[in-house]
Amino acid sequence: MGTKYIGKQSIRFDNPPSIVASAAVGSKKEGDGPLGSWFDYISADSRFGQKSWEKAETTMQQKVFSIACDKAMLSPSQLRYIFAGDLLNQCTASSYSMRDSGIPFLGLYGACSTIAQGLALAAMSIDGGYADKAAVITSSHFCSAERQFRTPLEYGGQRTPTAQWTATAAGCAVLSAVGQGPFITNVTIGTIKDAGISDVNNMGAAMAPAAYETISTHLADFSIKPGDYDLIVTGDLGKVGHDILLDLFSRDGFDLSAICDDCGLLLYSLEEQDVHAGASGCGCAASVLCGYLLAGVRSGRWKKVLISATGALMSPVTSGQGESIPGISHAVTICSSGEGF
Amino acid sequence: MGTKYIGKQSIRFDNPPSIVASAAVGSKKEGDGPLGSWFDYISADSRFGQKSWEKAETTMQQKVFSIACDKAMLSPSQLRYIFAGDLLNQCTASSYSMRDSGIPFLGLYGACSTIAQGLALAAMSIDGGYADKAAVITSSHFCSAERQFRTPLEYGGQRTPTAQWTATAAGCAVLSAVGQGPFITNVTIGTIKDAGISDVNNMGAAMAPAAYETISTHLADFSIKPGDYDLIVTGDLGKVGHDILLDLFSRDGFDLSAICDDCGLLLYSLEEQDVHAGASGCGCAASVLCGYLLAGVRSGRWKKVLISATGALMSPVTSGQGESIPGISHAVTICSSGEGF
Repeated sequence: MGTKYIGKQSIRFDNPPSIVASAAVGSKKEGDGPLGSWFDYISADSRFGQKSWEKAETTMQQKVFSIACDKAMLSPSQLRYIFAGDLLNQCTASSYSMRDSGIPFLGLYGACSTIAQGLALAAMSIDGGYADKAAVITSSHFCSAERQFRTPLEYGGQRTPTAQWTATAAGCAVLSAVGQGPFITNVTIGTIKDAGISDVNNMGAAMAPAAYETISTHLADFSIKPGDYDLIVTGDLGKVGHDILLDLFSRDGFDLSAICDDCGLLLYSLEEQDVHAGASGCGCAASVLCGYLLAGVRSGRWKKVLISATGALMSPVTSGQGESIPGISHAVTICSSGEGF
Repeated sequence: MGTKYIGKQSIRFDNPPSIVASAAVGSKKEGDGPLGSWFDYISADSRFGQKSWEKAETTMQQKVFSIACDKAMLSPSQLRYIFAGDLLNQCTASSYSMRDSGIPFLGLYGACSTIAQGLALAAMSIDGGYADKAAVITSSHFCSAERQFRTPLEYGGQRTPTAQWTATAAGCAVLSAVGQGPFITNVTIGTIKDAGISDVNNMGAAMAPAAYETISTHLADFSIKPGDYDLIVTGDLGKVGHDILLDLFSRDGFDLSAICDDCGLLLYSLEEQDVHAGASGCGCAASVLCGYLLAGVRSGRWKKVLISATGALMSPVTSGQGESIPGISHAVTICSSGEGF
């Protein structure tokens, strides 16, 4: 059996798994945003008919999973694994959403990078011969995140200009060993980078160095240039982090401004929707990828897309203890054909 | 490339990865217990020289990782991935312990089943050709867990007879494509089982059905009997959960009492150390496996061991909202030779 690891941190798949279906679910604010039409389901009720925000997030995951399975025309029992994670303490949105599914469950924690981590591991499980089909799900909910990470909603705390708005959204991708694509051809697993930022209202700045490191390593590992991609998307750096990322690359002589975007900038209309520096949350990159971006690959708009989802790995306790915010980013190459790098 | 998935939920590795080194670290209570001599390092100071319990847990992870790398005679930079997780909100013990390591990091959340989940994924990454070497680390700390999940230590809350004592311990295993063993030959990934238990002081009862399901499925998937193992170890059901597990198997006509043990029963002397139903925490199964159990496989005491680590996937928020406790268990076959099932 051949070795599939490349360079410092990367993987090239022998038999690139196919994303046979994907789905995105959101609530009113996500539906009102510029990507609203790319969501499979928008709930006007951000409680999703439940009594708590946490139960709402669980219900949202079940909804996106059900839609993705329907689109893939398979029953959940045909899935060999679910890779899932979210922002809630002990990742309960994921475990409670899947507790009656009967599907082998692998819980992840990568903060807002979870969708990329899940896609990487699910693709490894399929290309490696450990599964024929697997799914990845992640979610976040503005209200469950606000009260857990910041202040009770009722407190009405003022938001700083660098703050990002946690998306009430979930994304699900179903991967298969057989399919017409889009394909996952390459992966770069990120290392943790801590730039010393300790302002939890400036997570874009905390995560940008991780995205820079992962994308740079990815390009070096495969000996490619940014222009070999039609689109490089981070998620979710927001306005502050995105500008830092472009600046870091410009120091290396790369102008990424024309081909680099960010899920945190795409999901909402920043000024009209009053979201300050942009969107964030596990559900941001997941829903933007599983809706808008994968649709663009399927339609032929983009042939090669790099998604480098980013996560801020702090907790309210570590912040309270004066720690800075470690960032991480994992990068996944998504191609309309099985030909990657 | 051949298919390596077997039956409903299991995997047989073509080239079983070798556990080239493992280490266990604990504090005073763990050192005083019956397995004290199997720990590589015992800190009399449960703060591990740090100012907070959370920083202590991070330091404990760094210590166990450093010892395991030394025993494997490799520098951390030779590792392709770290798979790590813990019980703290947002799994910060793991991310902060590895933030300066420069090693590609994959965060997991499987509660106390995390060591088995990590071993399964790390073994897949190596057997699949995505890595030559990878490490798995998990930890728990009595004091950081008590104040997060239950009450402040200063409160001095009375413990119920079914309560378990969260281990202050960490375990680390270093896996390699090349080595003399012990080998990871087979894996069964668990599904989530919710038996309807909502008493957070009775997690053994909540997790026992998951262990039963995973071990039963494992035996069926490989067409083997319990007696094909020298030892089947759950972790960490404690006294209550262990008795339920034996009872569930007795209904199937299997008497597991002679070959089945539990990490939660092994770590402490239940009555002398006043730990009620036994030990728990991610660090319990991890340290018992990475110390005592792997030593027993290396010495030839046991040739084939099944470790089915168990996790309770609730949070204080879900419990507060009246939810029952979902359990999960992943099983990993560890053999002194590369011949598994």
